[in-house]
Amino acid sequence: MTWRQWAYRNLHTAAWHKTGVSPVNRIIALLIVAAVAVAILETEPTVVSGHERLFRWLEVFFATAFSIEYAARVWIAAENPEFGGGWRARLRYAVSLPAIIDLIALSTLFLTFFGSEGAFLRLFRLVRIFLLARLGRYSSALKAIGHALNSRRYELGASLTIAGMLLLISSSLLFMVEGSVQPDSFGSIPRAMWWSIATLTTVGYGDAFPVTPFGKVLAGITAITGIGLIAMPTGILAAAFSDAIQRQREANEDRREKTREKRTAIGEDEGHQPED
Amino acid sequence: MTWRQWAYRNLHTAAWHKTGVSPVNRIIALLIVAAVAVAILETEPTVVSGHERLFRWLEVFFATAFSIEYAARVWIAAENPEFGGGWRARLRYAVSLPAIIDLIALSTLFLTFFGSEGAFLRLFRLVRIFLLARLGRYSSALKAIGHALNSRRYELGASLTIAGMLLLISSSLLFMVEGSVQPDSFGSIPRAMWWSIATLTTVGYGDAFPVTPFGKVLAGITAITGIGLIAMPTGILAAAFSDAIQRQREANEDRREKTREKRTAIGEDEGHQPED
Amino acid sequence: MTWRQWAYRNLHTAAWHKTGVSPVNRIIALLIVAAVAVAILETEPTVVSGHERLFRWLEVFFATAFSIEYAARVWIAAENPEFGGGWRARLRYAVSLPAIIDLIALSTLFLTFFGSEGAFLRLFRLVRIFLLARLGRYSSALKAIGHALNSRRYELGASLTIAGMLLLISSSLLFMVEGSVQPDSFGSIPRAMWWSIATLTTVGYGDAFPVTPFGKVLAGITAITGIGLIAMPTGILAAAFSDAIQRQREANEDRREKTREKRTAIGEDEGHQPED
Amino acid sequence: MTWRQWAYRNLHTAAWHKTGVSPVNRIIALLIVAAVAVAILETEPTVVSGHERLFRWLEVFFATAFSIEYAARVWIAAENPEFGGGWRARLRYAVSLPAIIDLIALSTLFLTFFGSEGAFLRLFRLVRIFLLARLGRYSSALKAIGHALNSRRYELGASLTIAGMLLLISSSLLFMVEGSVQPDSFGSIPRAMWWSIATLTTVGYGDAFPVTPFGKVLAGITAITGIGLIAMPTGILAAAFSDAIQRQREANEDRREKTREKRTAIGEDEGHQPED
Repeated sequence: MTWRQWAYRNLHTAAWHKTGVSPVNRIIALLIVAAVAVAILETEPTVVSGHERLFRWLEVFFATAFSIEYAARVWIAAENPEFGGGWRARLRYAVSLPAIIDLIALSTLFLTFFGSEGAFLRLFRLVRIFLLARLGRYSSALKAIGHALNSRRYELGASLTIAGMLLLISSSLLFMVEGSVQPDSFGSIPRAMWWSIATLTTVGYGDAFPVTPFGKVLAGITAITGIGLIAMPTGILAAAFSDAIQRQREANEDRREKTREKRTAIGEDEGHQPED
Repeated sequence: MTWRQWAYRNLHTAAWHKTGVSPVNRIIALLIVAAVAVAILETEPTVVSGHERLFRWLEVFFATAFSIEYAARVWIAAENPEFGGGWRARLRYAVSLPAIIDLIALSTLFLTFFGSEGAFLRLFRLVRIFLLARLGRYSSALKAIGHALNSRRYELGASLTIAGMLLLISSSLLFMVEGSVQPDSFGSIPRAMWWSIATLTTVGYGDAFPVTPFGKVLAGITAITGIGLIAMPTGILAAAFSDAIQRQREANEDRREKTREKRTAIGEDEGHQPED
Repeated sequence: MTWRQWAYRNLHTAAWHKTGVSPVNRIIALLIVAAVAVAILETEPTVVSGHERLFRWLEVFFATAFSIEYAARVWIAAENPEFGGGWRARLRYAVSLPAIIDLIALSTLFLTFFGSEGAFLRLFRLVRIFLLARLGRYSSALKAIGHALNSRRYELGASLTIAGMLLLISSSLLFMVEGSVQPDSFGSIPRAMWWSIATLTTVGYGDAFPVTPFGKVLAGITAITGIGLIAMPTGILAAAFSDAIQRQREANEDRREKTREKRTAIGEDEGHQPED
Repeated sequence: MTWRQWAYRNLHTAAWHKTGVSPVNRIIALLIVAAVAVAILETEPTVVSGHERLFRWLEVFFATAFSIEYAARVWIAAENPEFGGGWRARLRYAVSLPAIIDLIALSTLFLTFFGSEGAFLRLFRLVRIFLLARLGRYSSALKAIGHALNSRRYELGASLTIAGMLLLISSSLLFMVEGSVQPDSFGSIPRAMWWSIATLTTVGYGDAFPVTPFGKVLAGITAITGIGLIAMPTGILAAAFSDAIQRQREANEDRREKTREKRTAIGEDEGHQPED
């Protein structure tokens, strides 16, 4: 096995010959999490102050590590039978979506070496978060959730529509009832919406709430409706997950059933019934 | 095909010959959403100030657009086989519920041209929100949710009754325990109910909460009971949606079963078993 | 039919010869709701002040109405075959639980005529709330919910135990971390529990929350754990309701299956297969 | 039966010859709950002050009671057939996990006799909470919940990952939008995370919330996303519990089916079909 073949096996998730994730990819995943954690902590002045040197070194370290990783991934693309082989395969890999996200995330690391703390660079730094999307590759459960969400997208969309309608109705009513009493919080429908969304989602910051008796009655009804808004998507998702589990079980049972039938057919000739 | 036939196909949702929603109805739906969004923004003085002219023009635009739409819908009603034909069909359409809602919503648009910012006109403006009800026509998922809610209406009603009982008990207890300590928040059962509903729905504005140790113990129990109140309707709805999905699957399986049986019957004559 | 028989049919829920609830019982139910509503409003001084006479008259009215109802129920008990007949049956009814609750609720109405606004009488007034328990008789959905809750009582109890453990752990940790910084809110485990219960149930009044970084991290973990605490009972109840629905469906299918088999058996003799 | 045999039956849960929990173990469980309750109350100065003597006596009482219990458990270990017998069995019991937890909890009781109110001893006191873990032995429903959680660990982990991603995205966005307006609450991503976690879990303390229009729009979307975060684990757990119930039912039906088949086979010989 050549070095490139070894690297391909270790870096390309689908090429790993054992179950699970290769040690190399595990380390890379850990590095990504660490890089995002550092990026988050860097925004906090009380953490950075006094450790500027440390954070600078961490930046250099991550920039180096991810540069090597990116280069390696381009290099091994030639091993990927899907891409053909040679430099053409490498180019094909380089223009694939995960490779582009990697490159953008990588470039932001280098950009911070030159840049000051401008708002624009802050935006670029945040792209690092998308590095985490690669971790998603490792998990098939995420796909299962995505599939469940997707299979019920119309119902979930409809419950979002109902939520929108309730948001409009409650904020309009509170605007009419409390608008003149508390113009700051309920003086317009958009202002009342801020209260309404905090109530319907049961967040309840407490910065805005009705003070008139009728407003409080309406707020109470809104809060109870909020329970319904939580119940609807939860119920839809519960049903979707339940359905997914049952399909899987039935598929398993079908397979077992067929195996048993086959064994029974063989068993008859041999004059005995095999036990399950 | 006459112009009226073309308009009928494009405006009447059931008459559209392709799947989905006709482009004309898509545009109308977008206009309705835009009209409601503008109506909401108009209540916010900081948005309107300096753009009075723009909002005036938008009002004129929406009034014109929806007038044309309404006239077109009346005109094409003659094509609707359900209504018979001719002016009689148009009259029948004009007195149908969606047509009346459209007309009221439309008239409020014209009323705002003459009216000042009176509270009464505000009320009329809100009728525009019902324009959104027409969007409901486009979604069959809303019906599925409505059906699920309807099939479990007794259980949902019963959980609302339980919620009402808990509201009464917790607000009565807190009124007794905290009434003399915090007369503003717990000085009467209706006042304690405001706290109770915010706690049972887990909204928790934080404007009212007990301060005595016993009051806090009762509030804690109320909050935990609130979890149960969320769990009940959610569980009921989850079961309803789960049941709906399973019924659909069984219906599909039944259909497939019958198709297979038929194919098997044919296959026997032909001396081979078709694979599924 | 004697008057007593007529009254028995109309008052005793099980004796009503048509489906649903008799008109007389409907009126009584409405009166009970009204009496509770009046009792609640009477605790609010701003509502009572200026309408003392009206509330006094309502009290007299409800006292009279419920006295008549109680007398009638005792009178008709003689018709109840379960109780035998005559005065013995009336006595048996009078010592049954619903009759005793009715009598206590009734007596509190009379007690308020003599009493001042003492705390003790307030307590008695609250017994009126239990009048609502009679409304429960009318609903079979409440029983279904009660059955679902009962069938999963161990799992629900276990999730309450887990909630208690999390409450202890989170309040102990926050007491250690924030105890010295905010002695008012976290100075002891019972104090920290008030915060912990508000967070775990996602109520979040906002009167107490950690201020130290480590305290905030722990609070965040507690809040996420709170989601799990909502998810557990909801999931358990959803499964219980789902199971109840499926049992009912299977019972229906079994019945239909048997009917079909019977019809098939008959159909064979008659030389034709009846369609389903 | 010797005294040791009697003690073994009463103390060792698995050795109890009747269903449920032995009276001795019930009393011990009650003592554990009482000891934890006392430990919690001891941290509250307003409760302890004036009752120092009482709490001291309670400490002595619990220390004595649990010492006797521990000694008894070591003594009876010789009866346990799993451990062999004699002092060797006692040693084996003493190094088992529950025995070690008991010993640590016990030692903290003695340590408090010598110690002042140091922060370190506080930590030790909290170990008493783990005494409650023994109560877990009594409940099989806890195992069922644990099993359900375990069977869906990947999906639950994936929904936690999604929660983490949403936390990162929303706190990053709010940091960018509100960072310069409210540096105290949104001046860094970690600070914005405190707001974000309170919103996503719908706790909503109300100590931090956006004030700019765009920030409020983002907060509204975050709050709605929070509903989804509650819906996901709830749906997953509901499906897991539903699946567990159904498996159990099918197992029961299978058993009944087999019993029926057996009875049918016997019934044929006897010339009659037994009824179910």
